Amino acid sequence: MTFELFYWPGLQGRGEFVRLAFEATGTPFVEIVQGDGPGQGMDGMLHTMDDPACTDPPFAPPFLRADGELIGQTANILAFLGPVLGLVGESPRARRFVNQLQLTLADLVAEVHDGHHPISSRLYYSNQRAEARKRTAELIDYRLPKFFDYFERVLANNPHAGGWLSEGAMSYADLSLFQLIAGLNYAFPRAMTGFAKAYPRCQGVHDGVARQPRIAAYLKSSRRIPFNTTGIFRHYKELDRASPF
Amino acid sequence: MTFELFYWPGLQGRGEFVRLAFEATGTPFVEIVQGDGPGQGMDGMLHTMDDPACTDPPFAPPFLRADGELIGQTANILAFLGPVLGLVGESPRARRFVNQLQLTLADLVAEVHDGHHPISSRLYYSNQRAEARKRTAELIDYRLPKFFDYFERVLANNPHAGGWLSEGAMSYADLSLFQLIAGLNYAFPRAMTGFAKAYPRCQGVHDGVARQPRIAAYLKSSRRIPFNTTGIFRHYKELDRASPF
Repeated sequence: MTFELFYWPGLQGRGEFVRLAFEATGTPFVEIVQGDGPGQGMDGMLHTMDDPACTDPPFAPPFLRADGELIGQTANILAFLGPVLGLVGESPRARRFVNQLQLTLADLVAEVHDGHHPISSRLYYSNQRAEARKRTAELIDYRLPKFFDYFERVLANNPHAGGWLSEGAMSYADLSLFQLIAGLNYAFPRAMTGFAKAYPRCQGVHDGVARQPRIAAYLKSSRRIPFNTTGIFRHYKELDRASPF
Repeated sequence: MTFELFYWPGLQGRGEFVRLAFEATGTPFVEIVQGDGPGQGMDGMLHTMDDPACTDPPFAPPFLRADGELIGQTANILAFLGPVLGLVGESPRARRFVNQLQLTLADLVAEVHDGHHPISSRLYYSNQRAEARKRTAELIDYRLPKFFDYFERVLANNPHAGGWLSEGAMSYADLSLFQLIAGLNYAFPRAMTGFAKAYPRCQGVHDGVARQPRIAAYLKSSRRIPFNTTGIFRHYKELDRASPF
């Protein structure tokens, strides 16, 4: 099966959750915006997304093309790829739980984004700086602890050994939790200072993913786009603050 | 199979997307917060959600209990119920597309919520009224048109007759689109004035769902909690405004 990933160039964004699934499993995939052939590049992506004849179009990037099918929404892409790439357990119950975890991670990702864009994703950060300061304070003081308390509890209660979120093997939700923690470390170094001590099991997932040989190689490669202030996780010094953990 | 729904009392909220799936198919279900037996009522819900021994806990309501399994996240609940209740097509591709649509609807639902709570879901609306006015203006001027342009295009391009989002039969995504439009009609009567003319196919889904005999009976019953200003869709006169459509 050929996998073609459609995502904005130059930022990790939500596309990175899909890239990590491919990289962790050594699965070849094509980044459409990086190509310059017909149907590739930015024009190719926008043309595919806005094709008036498409019967099941995606709403926004990232989306995947596999066997001629377009699949949109990050969690939906991963629910499709998980079984194909061996990144989720076999049982329907495990698959539902990993999808639930992924959707919960996605909710927090959206809240992190809205930390710097609480009024409008259309306008620049500099147009909503005062509101961003308030919302990010809420994020750091209340929302991060609430979400990470939850993920830490899930990890503590997993009856299987291995330290992963579901069953005894790494799933795509573990990859996404890694990415979330990595992004928060970049965006909020001050807030994240006590994270490893407060959430040792979540930190364990982060470290366990980073140690996977394929992931370790990917993170050192030029394929890993550096975090920057055009993505979801942005470092603005004035938004960072001490956290309760 | 016994279905137990866990959701906050007194508001439609995200629980309503699940209720509509049960109501549309005449499927009996138990509302845990309405009971007063052991494990029921608010205490029963919170105890179930926070049970330290639970190996696959939900992050937040709504969640479902079916055959002893807890299933959280609205879209995940509906992805489970869809095939069981006959509210999604048979093919994996149709199921992925309906899940994708549901996640896109969920994104807009979250944006509607953040319209009145752009800074913090923990604080009252009255504490973020100025920011709410700005964010809701963005919602009405830019986000609603962007999302409804998309859903209208999906409906226009569906090769099957019937006027539904996917294939030729009503799916749970159609039920959710109905609920979204009904909620927006309550919250923003001024903005929604030209909606039926601008988005006739979306309006058609709304009307087609409302005409389903079981749904029509439900909407007239006391089981349908009225829209109010504790839910996702809130009518605050100062936030409503003329829309571009």
